[in-house]
Amino acid sequence: MPTALPDHVLDALLADDVPFGDLTTHALGISGQPARMTLAARDRLVVALSEEAARLVERSGAAVTLLAGSGAALAPGDPILEARGPAGALHRAWKVAQTLLEIASGIATTTRAIVAAARAVAPDIAIACTRKTVPGAKALSIKAIMAGGAVPHRLGLSETLLVFEEHRRFLKDVAPAEIVARLRRAVPEKKVVVEVAGLDEGLAWAQAGADVIQAEKFSPEAIAALVAALKNAAPATIVAAAGGIGPDNAAAYATAGARVLVTSAPYTAKPRDVQVTLGPA
Amino acid sequence: MPTALPDHVLDALLADDVPFGDLTTHALGISGQPARMTLAARDRLVVALSEEAARLVERSGAAVTLLAGSGAALAPGDPILEARGPAGALHRAWKVAQTLLEIASGIATTTRAIVAAARAVAPDIAIACTRKTVPGAKALSIKAIMAGGAVPHRLGLSETLLVFEEHRRFLKDVAPAEIVARLRRAVPEKKVVVEVAGLDEGLAWAQAGADVIQAEKFSPEAIAALVAALKNAAPATIVAAAGGIGPDNAAAYATAGARVLVTSAPYTAKPRDVQVTLGPA
Amino acid sequence: MPTALPDHVLDALLADDVPFGDLTTHALGISGQPARMTLAARDRLVVALSEEAARLVERSGAAVTLLAGSGAALAPGDPILEARGPAGALHRAWKVAQTLLEIASGIATTTRAIVAAARAVAPDIAIACTRKTVPGAKALSIKAIMAGGAVPHRLGLSETLLVFEEHRRFLKDVAPAEIVARLRRAVPEKKVVVEVAGLDEGLAWAQAGADVIQAEKFSPEAIAALVAALKNAAPATIVAAAGGIGPDNAAAYATAGARVLVTSAPYTAKPRDVQVTLGPA
Amino acid sequence: MPTALPDHVLDALLADDVPFGDLTTHALGISGQPARMTLAARDRLVVALSEEAARLVERSGAAVTLLAGSGAALAPGDPILEARGPAGALHRAWKVAQTLLEIASGIATTTRAIVAAARAVAPDIAIACTRKTVPGAKALSIKAIMAGGAVPHRLGLSETLLVFEEHRRFLKDVAPAEIVARLRRAVPEKKVVVEVAGLDEGLAWAQAGADVIQAEKFSPEAIAALVAALKNAAPATIVAAAGGIGPDNAAAYATAGARVLVTSAPYTAKPRDVQVTLGPA
Amino acid sequence: MPTALPDHVLDALLADDVPFGDLTTHALGISGQPARMTLAARDRLVVALSEEAARLVERSGAAVTLLAGSGAALAPGDPILEARGPAGALHRAWKVAQTLLEIASGIATTTRAIVAAARAVAPDIAIACTRKTVPGAKALSIKAIMAGGAVPHRLGLSETLLVFEEHRRFLKDVAPAEIVARLRRAVPEKKVVVEVAGLDEGLAWAQAGADVIQAEKFSPEAIAALVAALKNAAPATIVAAAGGIGPDNAAAYATAGARVLVTSAPYTAKPRDVQVTLGPA
Amino acid sequence: MPTALPDHVLDALLADDVPFGDLTTHALGISGQPARMTLAARDRLVVALSEEAARLVERSGAAVTLLAGSGAALAPGDPILEARGPAGALHRAWKVAQTLLEIASGIATTTRAIVAAARAVAPDIAIACTRKTVPGAKALSIKAIMAGGAVPHRLGLSETLLVFEEHRRFLKDVAPAEIVARLRRAVPEKKVVVEVAGLDEGLAWAQAGADVIQAEKFSPEAIAALVAALKNAAPATIVAAAGGIGPDNAAAYATAGARVLVTSAPYTAKPRDVQVTLGPA
Repeated sequence: MPTALPDHVLDALLADDVPFGDLTTHALGISGQPARMTLAARDRLVVALSEEAARLVERSGAAVTLLAGSGAALAPGDPILEARGPAGALHRAWKVAQTLLEIASGIATTTRAIVAAARAVAPDIAIACTRKTVPGAKALSIKAIMAGGAVPHRLGLSETLLVFEEHRRFLKDVAPAEIVARLRRAVPEKKVVVEVAGLDEGLAWAQAGADVIQAEKFSPEAIAALVAALKNAAPATIVAAAGGIGPDNAAAYATAGARVLVTSAPYTAKPRDVQVTLGPA
Repeated sequence: MPTALPDHVLDALLADDVPFGDLTTHALGISGQPARMTLAARDRLVVALSEEAARLVERSGAAVTLLAGSGAALAPGDPILEARGPAGALHRAWKVAQTLLEIASGIATTTRAIVAAARAVAPDIAIACTRKTVPGAKALSIKAIMAGGAVPHRLGLSETLLVFEEHRRFLKDVAPAEIVARLRRAVPEKKVVVEVAGLDEGLAWAQAGADVIQAEKFSPEAIAALVAALKNAAPATIVAAAGGIGPDNAAAYATAGARVLVTSAPYTAKPRDVQVTLGPA
Repeated sequence: MPTALPDHVLDALLADDVPFGDLTTHALGISGQPARMTLAARDRLVVALSEEAARLVERSGAAVTLLAGSGAALAPGDPILEARGPAGALHRAWKVAQTLLEIASGIATTTRAIVAAARAVAPDIAIACTRKTVPGAKALSIKAIMAGGAVPHRLGLSETLLVFEEHRRFLKDVAPAEIVARLRRAVPEKKVVVEVAGLDEGLAWAQAGADVIQAEKFSPEAIAALVAALKNAAPATIVAAAGGIGPDNAAAYATAGARVLVTSAPYTAKPRDVQVTLGPA
Repeated sequence: MPTALPDHVLDALLADDVPFGDLTTHALGISGQPARMTLAARDRLVVALSEEAARLVERSGAAVTLLAGSGAALAPGDPILEARGPAGALHRAWKVAQTLLEIASGIATTTRAIVAAARAVAPDIAIACTRKTVPGAKALSIKAIMAGGAVPHRLGLSETLLVFEEHRRFLKDVAPAEIVARLRRAVPEKKVVVEVAGLDEGLAWAQAGADVIQAEKFSPEAIAALVAALKNAAPATIVAAAGGIGPDNAAAYATAGARVLVTSAPYTAKPRDVQVTLGPA
Repeated sequence: MPTALPDHVLDALLADDVPFGDLTTHALGISGQPARMTLAARDRLVVALSEEAARLVERSGAAVTLLAGSGAALAPGDPILEARGPAGALHRAWKVAQTLLEIASGIATTTRAIVAAARAVAPDIAIACTRKTVPGAKALSIKAIMAGGAVPHRLGLSETLLVFEEHRRFLKDVAPAEIVARLRRAVPEKKVVVEVAGLDEGLAWAQAGADVIQAEKFSPEAIAALVAALKNAAPATIVAAAGGIGPDNAAAYATAGARVLVTSAPYTAKPRDVQVTLGPA
Repeated sequence: MPTALPDHVLDALLADDVPFGDLTTHALGISGQPARMTLAARDRLVVALSEEAARLVERSGAAVTLLAGSGAALAPGDPILEARGPAGALHRAWKVAQTLLEIASGIATTTRAIVAAARAVAPDIAIACTRKTVPGAKALSIKAIMAGGAVPHRLGLSETLLVFEEHRRFLKDVAPAEIVARLRRAVPEKKVVVEVAGLDEGLAWAQAGADVIQAEKFSPEAIAALVAALKNAAPATIVAAAGGIGPDNAAAYATAGARVLVTSAPYTAKPRDVQVTLGPA
């Protein structure tokens, strides 16, 4: 899995938080003392961005050993990384690295929970996370959901086709089949995804040729009804359930027959605690 | 309240999500049609970053009227902004603006809930939010917590003094009073804040001269005990309660006598829903 | 069509080329004289990035009127934009704006030529341009090919599926149908595109379930043979012709039955001349 | 020759094209397999930016050996670089590195062709490339033309003196000699270059004291006439031929006596093919 | 002491000054020759930013040994760093590294002179440097003053409290004690600093509860008077002297009893000369 | 004169110093009050960067009138700009704008003093400022010296020819005339400048064909001797005096016959005081 945050971004995180070192460490006169720091899971968690955390500590002037890569499921106490260097370097990197790990592991852990719940009943189901990441945190969020077992739903608007009601209002007089045909002519290499708000609408667009029906805020029962209706009418159509999906209801949506679960829930998941030990070497 | 995200950051958010416009809008051939978009609260919320959302829509090529500034408490249906421009411009800005508002308003709303709960019992209490913001989202997060009524606890490590046990381990042979004195000599213009894990430790550092005792993961009862103990021993010392504080227990901590509540909870608050209406003008 | 180069990028282009103004203008003492500049097509061309060129001249300190938007087909002499301001501002912006227009219009004009040649024989064919843009010039290149009538083939590797022989070498023991199934399970919302080097390979992957067969460096005759073979074997499969396609052979590939032409040719198209007139107002 | 693209620029190229790795590699589950990649000349070419390509592959997580430095003339099959690492890392870097090399080597190869053609008849002639680089690609373009044997004509407007007719229109009443004197007074350390459109104009400005006459769009014959005319009238004056010069006519301009050939032709040269081999190690 | 300028900033300094190498070295054909460069103090100086200078030379392609860290007091001839590499790399880095060292060491040396003068009479006095750094040079300036023995007075406006007359004009009807109380309620973790222009004003604000009285442009005698007045009236109040303080009068202000000296003088200190030796290895 | 600091740089200066507004203004609850701010010369000064200062205040949310452009010579009390807006906006911009003006006007004022002193005795002399600007402050520094009447000596190493002894050490066996010839062949459009340390060396290089002799750390008398020696030996050669030149000795160097004075002195000139008035509107 590639590094999602390049050096200049890691350096900028450090420079923003600790531009001139930890003033407390400096004022206490302990910056040069040899020190050791370990980061370990305190909660049960799926770790994410540990490669970036390790690199960040390294950029701060310490020697680092990475002990758990992004995607690893850890029990409380399991080590993530270990570092050695001057106290000033470790105090500088401490909280920046810890926060990065806690936030990203929170995202990955929640993602994994959704994936596991859904796949327990539907092993081939895909979990796709939206583009509603916290502004400024897209790279870490996408890497974290991939570490958790999901894929990106769309990375942006310029490379995928997703027809909202907000598009269709501008085409009141154009039949669905013509709208689908227009998209296929222009962009034959992409699937046509259509967001719908009810069963009839879903059926109509599937029959008009949409590749994927994105069912927005359907209950699991409504998903099941849509899947059943499409079985005869448009058997190749994929049903993606979106809106309000999380660890608690993912199994229900999977059981209902959705082929894809689309969710934003992981992006603001509660951080998972990472335990830091920092002291003289 | 200043704009927290300058133009080049807003432009980068747009360029990252929609570098070449919404492909769906483009392929449907509707980019040039006159359109209108409104954003309004769907949930009850404290709005934040609406100035930035408005500017972002403007940068996308539309004319915008801002209807609710950061910090306003809105009821469901209350308008936030209204925009007019070509459909291509509005489809480009739609989700970026909406996500920015939903995330930031989630932060502000949770902050306001903590502030309100605490001030209901202790009108002069301060709520200070930590620096554990989602990496990359510091600017929006800090503006949002200020819109909610909090202040930043520390913006970074290079300008404040906060002594952790992780510092003290390097000074095993130095008495607390000497540690405080060393910090005052070096940095007389800042308060000396000391994080402690128990009552005795708090008492000892207050007597050693710390300005603020940051009580980490104390129960409300433990805070009350610390406040009582300090009343005689070191009456000028400020008690800050930190760790695990949120809307549900803020009143209890306030009642216990903490002068400051230190919290990271708002940063991963659940987004508050913003309703978007987008269609032909 | 959205602005592809935000202000800070335009400002950086100016700052890189003319950080402190045109030294000649300065040394001649004419910077403050009122001046007028017009840009017009010298060649027959499809203009592109004229919105950005106009904005750039404006950022340099002049008042600008845009006279031809991206995508317009211009005859020699047709005006693109007109500006008025101090001679220093116009000399500063002159060549930067001219070069931007000439390069981008070269790309758009070659794209349009391919589109026109192909659509003359196959009106519904799509032209998709690759991601092999000149490094650093992606945004202007993609906007320019869209102005010429093409769409992006892929904007990057992280959001689309395209299986190369270089992937398949790692899966020697896995049957094509299983490879396709694996991709569909993981990423059901994207089409599976497979690059092939010959007819048999194309047929095999179409039968294995690929949505799109990207035929690399096939002659038009070979494309025709592949299309014919797929008509019975896998009629829903889309054939995309790639490699060596330009204005001269686009019609032949279109006649051969390709549904998509994939090309990088426009990105290094010869610039189209733009005539600049600059003098006292 | 210095590295023209620093790490943060290389990282940005990767992040722009492959922010979260190659989705195909990821979905196929082969990212971690050991792999090997070689890049070699497919066309006859002068390689350029191979140092940057090597560094880019390294930044992606592979070990790299550079086999041909910028400026080397390669025959088909000659190796440029070799890399080893996980398949995910190599698939991530592949096309970004290849495109960089192909574009840059196209520029260097065309430059070398102009240099070679001109120097075959005039060994001391200089080839100077203009500032009309593809916007965003200045650094790679300038390094590539230097690898090809040219020098930059001007890197920007703020450090050189080049008097266009577009300057002189603001100085209708000032004699050429006074214009030259004004420039020399202000900027004595730079040569005064004057662009002219005909023989008489060239003669007049040489006699007025210009150091270099830049003859714009002269035929080789017209250059020869100008050189002859200046031989007596202003023997120290340098003649630079500009406009429409490329590999085909460079020798003619050199024979005509131009001391410098000014050209933009290399910047949009056709890319030179680089062959990539990527598979299991 | 942390690195104040991350790699991408160092790379940008090089790219700005020497984007394509030293043209003279290139034109002379000596870029590849093995070379050696040493930097040493020519003046007596306190060195600063030598870690960054060493890293910069390394980024340019040479091997470097750092011989004197930031904060070291050097005599003329004392070595700072030594580098080996190709002549092109060393000529590229030479002046950029030298200028960085000369400017930063000028700042550190002047800071140290103020610190030394003041501490000779008042060993516990603190020297705090303002935020009036040369725009664009904040990071190097703050690291340099810390190397010289000072601390930052404020790193910005968003994290400290400093009440100017320019604030008080908006609160004509509010008593000083109420202003201080308002600040304490809002931001209990920061000291309240108040800038005053005379003795009475200082006394009034100290009695109103300010933690620090910043005495602006007081003579040493006026400081002494203020300190005396506060001794009884508000003994815990800290007096900070600001405005016009430098090496020559620091001792006088220290003798007068100021607890902190606030100064901007080091930021435009005369650079200290660094001797460079560069030649064949 | 062009704007030297584009919007995103001005926004970054604000964001760095006041990312979340002035905390004092915020905590006092006065951010929204209508306010007025004027900036005026307190010292006699040549103003510089006032266009940028005005723009910066505007970016902060106020309406601004610029009253004195870069290059204007002001007497104490002369106004520079006036702004109106909410107190929060003006307190945010105040010190950033003031510091920018004070530093830049210090540079411009010292430059003007050198120019005036030299031109009083040699009206045609040129003052050229080096590239030894404070790292990070190049753009403001170059604009400021141009506002003061100087020109840049070199903006970087990649576009000019200046032969140091540190180059010549690599060419021990090559005669000066051959070195000059080599440079002329490679880069005929630039003047050849050679730095020398004594009269004989200067004479030798002038006779070898250098266009400019840069006499490093010559006394005025030594300059006079060099000028006299060249009058016969190489009358077209320009003498540039460099090293230690400032307002006090510029006239002496001008009298000695130097045609150019090369100086770095203005870059660390003492800031010139700018008076700010800020209060309720």
